[in-house]
Amino acid sequence: MRDLSDDRRWLAVNTATVRAWSLEQVIEGCTRSGISAIAPWRHIIQQCGLARAARLIRDAGFTITCLCRGGTFTAADEAGRRAALDDNRRAIDEAAAIGAGSLILVAGGLPAGSKDLAGAHAQVRDGIAGLLPHARAAGVPLAIEPLHPMTAADRACINTLAHANDLCDELGQGVGVAIDAYHVWWDPDLPRQIARSGARILSYHVCDWLVPTRDLVFDRGMPGDGIIDLQRLRAMVEDAGYGGHCDVEIFSAQNWWKRDPDEVLRICVERHQTVV
Amino acid sequence: MRDLSDDRRWLAVNTATVRAWSLEQVIEGCTRSGISAIAPWRHIIQQCGLARAARLIRDAGFTITCLCRGGTFTAADEAGRRAALDDNRRAIDEAAAIGAGSLILVAGGLPAGSKDLAGAHAQVRDGIAGLLPHARAAGVPLAIEPLHPMTAADRACINTLAHANDLCDELGQGVGVAIDAYHVWWDPDLPRQIARSGARILSYHVCDWLVPTRDLVFDRGMPGDGIIDLQRLRAMVEDAGYGGHCDVEIFSAQNWWKRDPDEVLRICVERHQTVV
Repeated sequence: MRDLSDDRRWLAVNTATVRAWSLEQVIEGCTRSGISAIAPWRHIIQQCGLARAARLIRDAGFTITCLCRGGTFTAADEAGRRAALDDNRRAIDEAAAIGAGSLILVAGGLPAGSKDLAGAHAQVRDGIAGLLPHARAAGVPLAIEPLHPMTAADRACINTLAHANDLCDELGQGVGVAIDAYHVWWDPDLPRQIARSGARILSYHVCDWLVPTRDLVFDRGMPGDGIIDLQRLRAMVEDAGYGGHCDVEIFSAQNWWKRDPDEVLRICVERHQTVV
Repeated sequence: MRDLSDDRRWLAVNTATVRAWSLEQVIEGCTRSGISAIAPWRHIIQQCGLARAARLIRDAGFTITCLCRGGTFTAADEAGRRAALDDNRRAIDEAAAIGAGSLILVAGGLPAGSKDLAGAHAQVRDGIAGLLPHARAAGVPLAIEPLHPMTAADRACINTLAHANDLCDELGQGVGVAIDAYHVWWDPDLPRQIARSGARILSYHVCDWLVPTRDLVFDRGMPGDGIIDLQRLRAMVEDAGYGGHCDVEIFSAQNWWKRDPDEVLRICVERHQTVV
């Protein structure tokens, strides 16, 4: 088990939480806050330039828990699905270049004009299968992240940890799961599925479910401000064998994104120590 | 199987769809539209007066598919849970008085201040168990309606048909399920769970999932305006043995609730014939 006397070293900050910052600013700001692990989104790596980003991260001695994100496998036609695969291969190369622990995969929703949910599920399975040889060769684990069912139509049609586990069973070595408390907390089957995930758990994300929630995407809460029993969830994930970081990932258009990112990090550290 | 040459007689209108109307107006308006089945909410029955409502319904020869709604079993203390049971017994009596096919049960969310999801699940189970003797004596079937997981915190902590089926297994005779396309369409386990529900299916509700959805409660779509494959879902429900109505239930603060209810009913009839 991890050493809880210095829990801060298990805190990672997803760059979406401090959305206004560039990669350079994230590294500087996290260093000021005593944080040395981050989960960057692709666009801030690309804005920095891949080679330069890799050098900055190496020089800072930072851990890259995961790269956000690949996926979006579903498309209305074959050309669209091929383009998605090409883009995912680039994402794998980026993840390898910055030493990311995994590449997060968000499935994609129903293709435009489609009501065929089972067909979308099959496209996601085929997409991951098509990506796996490149991921294995690059040594980048793929982490399927089930998203909340409210995103099924337009963002991600893999919405339960059970479904992600089923895909892992089918696809074999090189693919695991990312568990985000926000997306899965409601699931009555969660304890069983976390235990089933076991060593497949590549990444663990936290934020909180606010009551009321005013937007389906951009109204996530700081840990402790909502109703998720985060300590119980983390205990389940760690009991299943996970020994990595807790990535704090907060999409919050009306609150946290409007605040000073240094203040946001200070509160992330405090909440990580008290409620995560 | 039902006679599809006159499908309109399988259309029922949930009174929430024509929210501006009183019970009298609903009966008159539905009669004008050739609809003779409704699913009323308790407050419009109470506004009319229970005895008078029962007489109006009987005189019109209307079918009451179900009464919306009982439930909300979760509370922070024993007094709260007892009050909920008392209110649910009154709801059963109202359902019996108007000849409703079932009483819809919406579980209730986490009690105020609580993060104990498993505890809330237990409160719901105990609440339904406590209600069953009264329901059985009154001859009113209880229909557990799983609500979308986005409602788990503040409205209903039963969020999958699997969970509702598990409760039915545990609680025995007198309790079944209500299936609302809006709440369950995303579930990869749905075909299996609908087949498992079988004769337990007491009520079937339709509306549509809009892309984008702008509100977690009040932005449901008219059948055909969203991405749910309603015909496939209805076929699954009917293949499982359900032979009752399709209740059109649309919460739509920014669109359908602002329109002329007669126009809304006209479109309900049209969509029921073409996409449900």
